[in-house]
Amino acid sequence: MRIQWTDRGYIIDNTPGFLVSGEFHYFRVPKTDWERRLVLLKEAGMNCVATYIPWEIHEQKEGEFLFGDVPERDLEGFLRLCAKMELAVLCRPGPYQYSELRYDGLPEWLCEGYPAIYAQNVQGNTFRNSAVSYLHPLFLEKVQRWYRAVCPIVAKYMSSRGGPITFVQADNEMMGICIWNSGGWDYNREAMGIGAEGGRYPAFLKDRYSSVQALNAAYQTNFASFSAVQPFAGEAHDATQRRRVKDYQDFYFATVAEYVVLLTGWMREHGIDCDIVHNSPNPASNPQFLEVVRRMGKGFLLGSDHYYNLGPGWEQNNPTPQYTAKSFLSSEMLRLMGFPPTVFELPGGSASDWPPITSQDLRCCYDVNLAFGMKGLNYYIFTGGKNPFQIGRFSDVYDYGASIGADGSIRPVYMAVKEFGAFLQEHAWLACAALRSDILIGLDWEMGRCASYYKTREGVGISGTEAWSFLREGLITTSLCCSYTPELADLTRLDSISTEKPLLIPTSACMAKALQAGVTAFLRRGGRVLLSPTIPYLDENFNPCTILSDYLGRPEIRPCMRHAPRFTVGNIENIAVNSVLFGCTRLPVGANVKTIAKEEHSAAVTGWRLDLAEGGSALWLGLAWDYCMKEHRDMFIRLLKELGAVEPVIESDNPNVWSVLRVHENRAMLFIMNPYSAPMEASLRVRSTQGSGVDIGKQSLKPMEVKALELRNQA
Amino acid sequence: MRIQWTDRGYIIDNTPGFLVSGEFHYFRVPKTDWERRLVLLKEAGMNCVATYIPWEIHEQKEGEFLFGDVPERDLEGFLRLCAKMELAVLCRPGPYQYSELRYDGLPEWLCEGYPAIYAQNVQGNTFRNSAVSYLHPLFLEKVQRWYRAVCPIVAKYMSSRGGPITFVQADNEMMGICIWNSGGWDYNREAMGIGAEGGRYPAFLKDRYSSVQALNAAYQTNFASFSAVQPFAGEAHDATQRRRVKDYQDFYFATVAEYVVLLTGWMREHGIDCDIVHNSPNPASNPQFLEVVRRMGKGFLLGSDHYYNLGPGWEQNNPTPQYTAKSFLSSEMLRLMGFPPTVFELPGGSASDWPPITSQDLRCCYDVNLAFGMKGLNYYIFTGGKNPFQIGRFSDVYDYGASIGADGSIRPVYMAVKEFGAFLQEHAWLACAALRSDILIGLDWEMGRCASYYKTREGVGISGTEAWSFLREGLITTSLCCSYTPELADLTRLDSISTEKPLLIPTSACMAKALQAGVTAFLRRGGRVLLSPTIPYLDENFNPCTILSDYLGRPEIRPCMRHAPRFTVGNIENIAVNSVLFGCTRLPVGANVKTIAKEEHSAAVTGWRLDLAEGGSALWLGLAWDYCMKEHRDMFIRLLKELGAVEPVIESDNPNVWSVLRVHENRAMLFIMNPYSAPMEASLRVRSTQGSGVDIGKQSLKPMEVKALELRNQA
Repeated sequence: MRIQWTDRGYIIDNTPGFLVSGEFHYFRVPKTDWERRLVLLKEAGMNCVATYIPWEIHEQKEGEFLFGDVPERDLEGFLRLCAKMELAVLCRPGPYQYSELRYDGLPEWLCEGYPAIYAQNVQGNTFRNSAVSYLHPLFLEKVQRWYRAVCPIVAKYMSSRGGPITFVQADNEMMGICIWNSGGWDYNREAMGIGAEGGRYPAFLKDRYSSVQALNAAYQTNFASFSAVQPFAGEAHDATQRRRVKDYQDFYFATVAEYVVLLTGWMREHGIDCDIVHNSPNPASNPQFLEVVRRMGKGFLLGSDHYYNLGPGWEQNNPTPQYTAKSFLSSEMLRLMGFPPTVFELPGGSASDWPPITSQDLRCCYDVNLAFGMKGLNYYIFTGGKNPFQIGRFSDVYDYGASIGADGSIRPVYMAVKEFGAFLQEHAWLACAALRSDILIGLDWEMGRCASYYKTREGVGISGTEAWSFLREGLITTSLCCSYTPELADLTRLDSISTEKPLLIPTSACMAKALQAGVTAFLRRGGRVLLSPTIPYLDENFNPCTILSDYLGRPEIRPCMRHAPRFTVGNIENIAVNSVLFGCTRLPVGANVKTIAKEEHSAAVTGWRLDLAEGGSALWLGLAWDYCMKEHRDMFIRLLKELGAVEPVIESDNPNVWSVLRVHENRAMLFIMNPYSAPMEASLRVRSTQGSGVDIGKQSLKPMEVKALELRNQA
Repeated sequence: MRIQWTDRGYIIDNTPGFLVSGEFHYFRVPKTDWERRLVLLKEAGMNCVATYIPWEIHEQKEGEFLFGDVPERDLEGFLRLCAKMELAVLCRPGPYQYSELRYDGLPEWLCEGYPAIYAQNVQGNTFRNSAVSYLHPLFLEKVQRWYRAVCPIVAKYMSSRGGPITFVQADNEMMGICIWNSGGWDYNREAMGIGAEGGRYPAFLKDRYSSVQALNAAYQTNFASFSAVQPFAGEAHDATQRRRVKDYQDFYFATVAEYVVLLTGWMREHGIDCDIVHNSPNPASNPQFLEVVRRMGKGFLLGSDHYYNLGPGWEQNNPTPQYTAKSFLSSEMLRLMGFPPTVFELPGGSASDWPPITSQDLRCCYDVNLAFGMKGLNYYIFTGGKNPFQIGRFSDVYDYGASIGADGSIRPVYMAVKEFGAFLQEHAWLACAALRSDILIGLDWEMGRCASYYKTREGVGISGTEAWSFLREGLITTSLCCSYTPELADLTRLDSISTEKPLLIPTSACMAKALQAGVTAFLRRGGRVLLSPTIPYLDENFNPCTILSDYLGRPEIRPCMRHAPRFTVGNIENIAVNSVLFGCTRLPVGANVKTIAKEEHSAAVTGWRLDLAEGGSALWLGLAWDYCMKEHRDMFIRLLKELGAVEPVIESDNPNVWSVLRVHENRAMLFIMNPYSAPMEASLRVRSTQGSGVDIGKQSLKPMEVKALELRNQA
């Protein structure tokens, strides 16, 4: 099987189609049942099998590699069977697996015997003896030896050599192990070269600042040399602290990229010539992989993992609209990175037996991911089994409530998976379908990375994380509730984007210089832009930068933090201010300004529209909101009208039922979603490109039901 | 109408029945529609109406009190109408209302004009200008004036005088305003007398420690006098810091009790002679009201508010099993305080328009609360309307998606409320029904109060909050999943509890001296007790106290924190250790000890059973778990067998479907609950007191459905 991909989707044996994979661990599933379960997997519409190759079980004693001695280690037997069954294989030789394994898939001898390799928190303390420092030389030496053992086996089964392996994953959910266990990054002194002449960290700083004087000016510090610089410990509250934390984070992400480049290099040395993949641990982590994506370049594919519940610590038990919005954001980010949105871990069950994972909830989860752009997926897991060699962290049995039980039984989940698989095959054209969107929402990647250094409002009235939350909980959610389908636009690439649709940009005090220039150029080209809740006046390093503000006539925008503001847009009064409100203390100079919003008690101007000489218009609104009240919807539609938006493609009379249209050539599929535990009804109307409307009529949806209606001649 | 109550339930006009109230704001509902909506309320089975009397609208200008001048202020007209309609009234004259009002119901002139009254955080900073310091003299002076105006009106309509008012609430969700806005308590220097000779705080400390030397010994400080003592700022990490934070918290709770005693005294002065009520903001806050309950004594009734979603910031949109377990714990706490469990704010909708609140979810919420012991309730809200005088914080319209819309329309929610009301009337005997329980779970109130000072494990291997979480997420959840119905037992009153049922006690390093003595006495009486995960060796003030441990032969219990422990109980292997594990390094001396659990890698003993000379048995298990894996269930049943528990009253083949039996005299009602978004099935069997079983057969439940089956002759 030959699997190719573009940023639009997968091409399987030269035909557009979905990558549909099932996680299937040869070391857990009894060998005697491999074939039967693989038949079930194929019958459920899957064309690929994913498996870890746990370092932990193949090198149980240091330096002693075992493959094929027992059924649980018969990797080659498994690969041959997959080949025979014409299933593609995605394999993951680690180093990490997680997978609810002891030591997260690393060998016990490594974690217990070499404490020098442990990752450290910013205070220099270790926090988990299976959290290692990726670039520690001792760790890399052990990994290289493991790769020397495992990669030649994997290489033998490359699809280029007629084998089944089409993807190899390097490591697993990188960075997760640190953030989950220490709440921060890895600061291993040796690996990072902190405080060391010629170390990685000083080298990074030297590259960034050239001179230590420049660094000291930025940090307001007195370091004698780059190698004397220590990472900042604690929460960042001002520009100097923010720069220090951000620099370390950028450095850390670069080390992760270095790590994965190293792993890939070793794989290539051993003849692994397929594309390398990786899975971001969750939607929120996607922006942390920019450096990885950039360094890896061609032949690399990033996906993301989209769970809604893995255990009782999760508050919700099912895929809620909040989950749905995260899934939308994740798929859009992957698309903008140039990848076909792939969910490398789409729930096929849950790590815990309780709360239960139901087939109804899972099917809803699959459908909303599909509606929002998923082109490839891997059910985690399709089937489990006994954990061999007592390697299970939580249980000797790895069951996951999955399609096929650890004991081989067929569960109701299997029917949901199979029906979804049949749907994907029947509607294979969806593999190249795109969202029919009404509006653009601007994506500033840095906003999704700034939680570590720009979480507080001090001095700027809004934090970067508040602006990022506004992106999803405000703009995306509101537009879906208004049935205006949003599409994300990468603010670094505005030059390639048509000005036809309005562009809504969540803002904080900071926007990179290049982005400010990009937005300005977009406006110059006649673009219509909403900036909310503020107008940036700092660049990505918290230095003054007013390119955009200058173009808009240098308005003065200040926090408008009075108690119980009465915020009014046009005739929509008392709009909930549940996050941030800014007022304008000096209107744009020398321009055509129309006030559209006010705080009534103080009469502060909290929104205006500016029609620019070159034809564009800028709308500024002082509010970042979390969507919760009807007034937010009324306000949003009013703002879109100010921006000259046309009527949306879909009209719906129920704001709770979200719907989107995916189109390809002359085909169109309307997805109508009810991710609630109660039935819902909605009457819909779809506008075709010719402008005529089609009544879809009243639709009744059961709890957690998603309907997919194919519309003829509506694309 | 005459409403009385005991700790078992309400007595309405001399007949046991439910208190069923609907929140109905005379200042929001148009006066012209009061009567129609009250008829609807009565028809939905309610016997009571609850309303705020907002200070904010009746004293808009300082010192000018307005009642009855406009329909929105016609309190007396409303009370007369309620009387005419034979509806009891619960009224709430504040000072606080919250109720999504600007300034949380306080007058604007007060919050904007008197900054001295603002509550302060531990650093001395204010955090919200509608968060006031309850005991600030200036605030109390203004409150007293407000009470002089409002209380005589309320007093005129007392039920003792033939009027409708049967309950008056003092303030609202006390303490919430601080915790939500500052994350801590109020430290207003003036009101608390911090640093002041003769101030409240020094007086409290003097009362607690007698001499400043004793205080300095406890705190490891060098304060020259009580008035020099400053509250500890920051997170407590050792015993001395913990004592300081705990003392301040105890002091703060006592000031809140002083405040409500003051308010009550003023009400009494003006002739309010009915019972005074108050609502804990949520289940977790109930233990913070012990001082209030103690000081108020007779004539006071505490309830709790049980929301599952008030806005998009809540992760779950419906009442989940996690919510259900909280509701169980809350009702049990109220019962143990001597009250008929009353939910003073049972969701009748949500403060936000999105995510939507559905009638199906609400009905499920009502049913699970009923199943778990609710005897009185107030729908918040039954109906809304326009916010007069622009007092709405979020919207000019207060709708809540409630039974009757702000515009007067009848919603599907109304039918759910009405059907539930009819059910309560039809099964009025449930008003005095009690849970048929199988096992006892010990409640240490202090565990529910210690999050501020005992959140970290330093030095003790487990925190108090971990033990508290184990109570709900471990013991309660596991027992419900095993269909062993739990009942809480107040550890301060073990002397009155029969030793017939096994008693499971979640433990931390600390247990009050009196409680240790109580558990020891329970064992001496032949009680069978599980202690897990440790055996306390400190008292409530983190001083050594080994009464219980001494009785158990002084075992040595130590944290057993190796990576990836392999925890085994009997033949149940590899049990998930997702929280805390302890090992026993010295077995109890001179006793009959049987090891029941081990950590296999280290061979550490992690559980034993001790049969005591006086006939009792103590089981110690080194694990605190969050219920998530099947093995937890197997282990739990195994532990109960070791404790000699009999078969449970209910047997169920589906651990996800929880069921309980409520009984009164010869009647019994079986509640079968499905708080999931997918259908569920379960086959049940109920054991009668005579020991014979009744097959209930296979039950199919729709998403969010709760079935109530009355069983004949099964009580």
